[in-house]
Amino acid sequence: MSIVLGPNQYGKAEVRLVRVDRGTPRHRITDLSITSQLRGDFRATHESGDNTGVIATDTQKNTVYAFARNGVGSPETLLLRLARHFLAEPQVTGGRWRAEQYGWERIGADAAGGAPGAVGHDHSFVRGAAERRTALVHADDAGLTVLAGLRDVTVLKSTGSEFSGFPRDRYTTLPETDDRILATDVTAWWRYAPSFADAAGPTDYDERFAAVRALLLTTFAELHSLALQQTVFAMGRAVLEAFGDIAEIRLSCPNNHHFLVDLEPFGLDNPGEVFFAADRPYGLIEAAVQRSGDGPEHAVWSTIGGFV
Amino acid sequence: MSIVLGPNQYGKAEVRLVRVDRGTPRHRITDLSITSQLRGDFRATHESGDNTGVIATDTQKNTVYAFARNGVGSPETLLLRLARHFLAEPQVTGGRWRAEQYGWERIGADAAGGAPGAVGHDHSFVRGAAERRTALVHADDAGLTVLAGLRDVTVLKSTGSEFSGFPRDRYTTLPETDDRILATDVTAWWRYAPSFADAAGPTDYDERFAAVRALLLTTFAELHSLALQQTVFAMGRAVLEAFGDIAEIRLSCPNNHHFLVDLEPFGLDNPGEVFFAADRPYGLIEAAVQRSGDGPEHAVWSTIGGFV
Amino acid sequence: MSIVLGPNQYGKAEVRLVRVDRGTPRHRITDLSITSQLRGDFRATHESGDNTGVIATDTQKNTVYAFARNGVGSPETLLLRLARHFLAEPQVTGGRWRAEQYGWERIGADAAGGAPGAVGHDHSFVRGAAERRTALVHADDAGLTVLAGLRDVTVLKSTGSEFSGFPRDRYTTLPETDDRILATDVTAWWRYAPSFADAAGPTDYDERFAAVRALLLTTFAELHSLALQQTVFAMGRAVLEAFGDIAEIRLSCPNNHHFLVDLEPFGLDNPGEVFFAADRPYGLIEAAVQRSGDGPEHAVWSTIGGFV
Amino acid sequence: MSIVLGPNQYGKAEVRLVRVDRGTPRHRITDLSITSQLRGDFRATHESGDNTGVIATDTQKNTVYAFARNGVGSPETLLLRLARHFLAEPQVTGGRWRAEQYGWERIGADAAGGAPGAVGHDHSFVRGAAERRTALVHADDAGLTVLAGLRDVTVLKSTGSEFSGFPRDRYTTLPETDDRILATDVTAWWRYAPSFADAAGPTDYDERFAAVRALLLTTFAELHSLALQQTVFAMGRAVLEAFGDIAEIRLSCPNNHHFLVDLEPFGLDNPGEVFFAADRPYGLIEAAVQRSGDGPEHAVWSTIGGFV
Repeated sequence: MSIVLGPNQYGKAEVRLVRVDRGTPRHRITDLSITSQLRGDFRATHESGDNTGVIATDTQKNTVYAFARNGVGSPETLLLRLARHFLAEPQVTGGRWRAEQYGWERIGADAAGGAPGAVGHDHSFVRGAAERRTALVHADDAGLTVLAGLRDVTVLKSTGSEFSGFPRDRYTTLPETDDRILATDVTAWWRYAPSFADAAGPTDYDERFAAVRALLLTTFAELHSLALQQTVFAMGRAVLEAFGDIAEIRLSCPNNHHFLVDLEPFGLDNPGEVFFAADRPYGLIEAAVQRSGDGPEHAVWSTIGGFV
Repeated sequence: MSIVLGPNQYGKAEVRLVRVDRGTPRHRITDLSITSQLRGDFRATHESGDNTGVIATDTQKNTVYAFARNGVGSPETLLLRLARHFLAEPQVTGGRWRAEQYGWERIGADAAGGAPGAVGHDHSFVRGAAERRTALVHADDAGLTVLAGLRDVTVLKSTGSEFSGFPRDRYTTLPETDDRILATDVTAWWRYAPSFADAAGPTDYDERFAAVRALLLTTFAELHSLALQQTVFAMGRAVLEAFGDIAEIRLSCPNNHHFLVDLEPFGLDNPGEVFFAADRPYGLIEAAVQRSGDGPEHAVWSTIGGFV
Repeated sequence: MSIVLGPNQYGKAEVRLVRVDRGTPRHRITDLSITSQLRGDFRATHESGDNTGVIATDTQKNTVYAFARNGVGSPETLLLRLARHFLAEPQVTGGRWRAEQYGWERIGADAAGGAPGAVGHDHSFVRGAAERRTALVHADDAGLTVLAGLRDVTVLKSTGSEFSGFPRDRYTTLPETDDRILATDVTAWWRYAPSFADAAGPTDYDERFAAVRALLLTTFAELHSLALQQTVFAMGRAVLEAFGDIAEIRLSCPNNHHFLVDLEPFGLDNPGEVFFAADRPYGLIEAAVQRSGDGPEHAVWSTIGGFV
Repeated sequence: MSIVLGPNQYGKAEVRLVRVDRGTPRHRITDLSITSQLRGDFRATHESGDNTGVIATDTQKNTVYAFARNGVGSPETLLLRLARHFLAEPQVTGGRWRAEQYGWERIGADAAGGAPGAVGHDHSFVRGAAERRTALVHADDAGLTVLAGLRDVTVLKSTGSEFSGFPRDRYTTLPETDDRILATDVTAWWRYAPSFADAAGPTDYDERFAAVRALLLTTFAELHSLALQQTVFAMGRAVLEAFGDIAEIRLSCPNNHHFLVDLEPFGLDNPGEVFFAADRPYGLIEAAVQRSGDGPEHAVWSTIGGFV
């Protein structure tokens, strides 16, 4: 057996692009971190340093900025434009383009008594939640696949969560509970069916993202949870039920433990009021929610790993 | 000259406290990281390991949790209770208690068409912006001083910012500009005059915090900026003008550079639309805004250092 | 099509275990972060919150600590013990156990003039480089697979690196160079063939790790690099050439750009001496090095994702 | 009382400079992050955006790179050159220049059987420990002050540490212990007396840094500790005893708690072998060690804050 090059990809990661739309005095900003990775016939550079076919990562970065000149649209549409551009090169047979978007709100938009209609400042913004919207376009011989997602959406229920009925072995000390804090940082990726991706424009992607995010949060809020696994699956199922053109969704949710502090040594009770928020270790619940009969594992997931 | 112990303090840092107020089905959560540091006569432990007077940092942590049993109030009022508790010990002659508060919003509160009155879920929450509210109580021979503040309030203006007229020496290459992006992460500490701190209750502290935060943002948004220094000073001045019982405010504001990308090599113009958001280096603008005749430097600032 | 649970796993992440071996006055410490994730028949908890089969993540954590009582051995052997323990439960059909190890050195061990033989303090240690040793055991129907690896091994060559010959399109501005700084943070995972894993004891794993790490570094240092891709492939090939019982290796290496500063405006030349170390964006080069005829993609890699 | 500008400073932070000394084939690299902050008469820019006197932060960055062209020397000497350069401007009456240095080792230098004399590769390096060397030059009306320091030197003793004899109140639950793990991340700043700083060259600063670092570690290792406070004070005292031209030292040391895991529920003892390394909260011990009769607080410390 000889030693050979296996799967490989290369590109530029975390290109920080801020686009200002200033066609009217009411500016819009789009704040992105974009990663471009190419796959194809790159044996020569690996084996002998022959870079004849290597589109420089610096060129990939330049292309991101140049393409933004005509507007970003949605993250997904910008990534699709990049994908199609690079796939036009013969040595490029696939790749992976990824975006993270940071949220901004208009200063003053949350002020009480805001007038109906346009609220908030025209060109001054304040950064929103730490959560990020994500998007990914994957290309291989089978074509283009579009994923959308979100990261670090931190949510917490102060009641309406139980955990009991689990098996007890010699290493089990956890008591059962019928009322605990349930908290997690939701990371999710959902895969659009071609029926959606083939026709969607920027507004479609933006609206769909907002709808899925809202549905994930509502489901987390409404479900009386018997296990984080149940909550995670319910969140994913709700999305597939609502949107027939989403083929699959995967979620990765840490269990951010909040331990009830034992106040008895101080002569105090603690009826679910005072908690210690722990850093590590944490539970980690990960699941895919799919449609039955949807065929084998889609290739895109092997590039997400997702589940580090 | 012999070698002696100089200024010193010790305590427990970053006690993570989540308090759930569940008196009614509409829960409230308070999410804090609290640091308690004591000063006083602690020579014996330093010089010989005699811990007779050392209130264990573990005990300080326990005290935080025990005090939270009766409710937090505002961060400032919880810190004041802790300060007074520890100062009752004879060996404790001063100290410093500090809080960071993380923001949470009710899930569904941002939904369109929310009914008037109570909106959002009763006991399910989503984490807000990465920014944090801060508070600090400082105790020394002169008594108690209360600071309030905020951290990492990230703001950006997409126009309305210039920078020109600066001197040019042999190391100057920066072009002048009459239109740039101005972006920063505001960190601020303001010191309450005793006239406020002596009488304020939790609601007063909460309302004042909200008012100062809003004023800082509005000033950032409204001022046509000729330099980040001008913006920083204006933000501080606005607070002192509005609130006679705030004695002083200090701000530390990085200049988060957004560089216009040169698209000329690609045959494109770039009229203020496509920017590269840089990580490092960054400008750093720091200033105190004070009232004239307010006497020498207040001792609390030497404990903030603030400006690393 | 109905909606169904797809691939899923759950467990406890980042269990921070420090083991002190104190059988003799010359202590040894092992500092680990361990993640345990189980796969199997967990539909009931996802679909209805029935936790009958759910080995609590808290129990998984307890098991880690209890198993450490008898010594850790190498990270790989501890993970194998955990894997076999959990796989004995009927509902557990697979899983993934992962470790990161932090390095410590004896205080005084680097002192000049150290005596031959044992050097450094018996029970006082200083933390070594930020790099971490990693290990992973993966279980599925095909059995157990052992990976070893390392993370964040930051290396730099101040010369002996070129990059030229790449194609130029309308978005290419990068000049060719025959002398640049090449710097990266090496992350690597290698898969042990069963011939190694079936027989290896803790010492074998430790020695093999040290040998692979040294080989990766030496190859980085010695190769005159025409592209980071060439360096990455050479590093992987060197490992497979040296160790017939390593089946495959995958590397992920950012290109940590160091840009030569243009000092001409200041009347100075810069013959490869003064550089700006950039944060973002960065190049990202990822490759697998395999043995030809080794069959299809091994299942373990889909759980690494590796390449975020 | 009118509202006025108080203390203020501005500059460029975290200028990432990598200097390659390539006078011979055996290269040396110096890897620094440099912050330059100016103080003086900057009222005009704050009050009205008049930038006539504002040396642009971009110019400060350029100056760092230009000055590095002639070699860095030690961090302290580079900062002193920068300080003197900027202080020559009439509007600049003070300032603060700060450096962090990252350590690199030659690849192969730790190989067994290294030949005597030069070991390790000529131009290939691997990053050392996460710890950083720091330096600071402070300028005010009283002249220049030089501080040196280190950050994040993580150390641990697996025995030789006790904590008992502390007072017990109603909030005390911590048991006394005569054998625990003691671990901390040492941050220290020491102030050179003018007698040292006025005459020292780069080599003096480098050698002194190495000597102080070694002494801090040795003291940590050798002292049987009855409290982290005792260890901290002993470390500082050792430095002042050894070096008469160091005027003062300040240390900030978290107590990185390692809790003995209770294995009794699993039928196991735990004689100081299996520990949980906690993240938060942590103890925090901070102290200055001084020479008696050394006068009032030195102005430099108010700019360190040190004690965040």
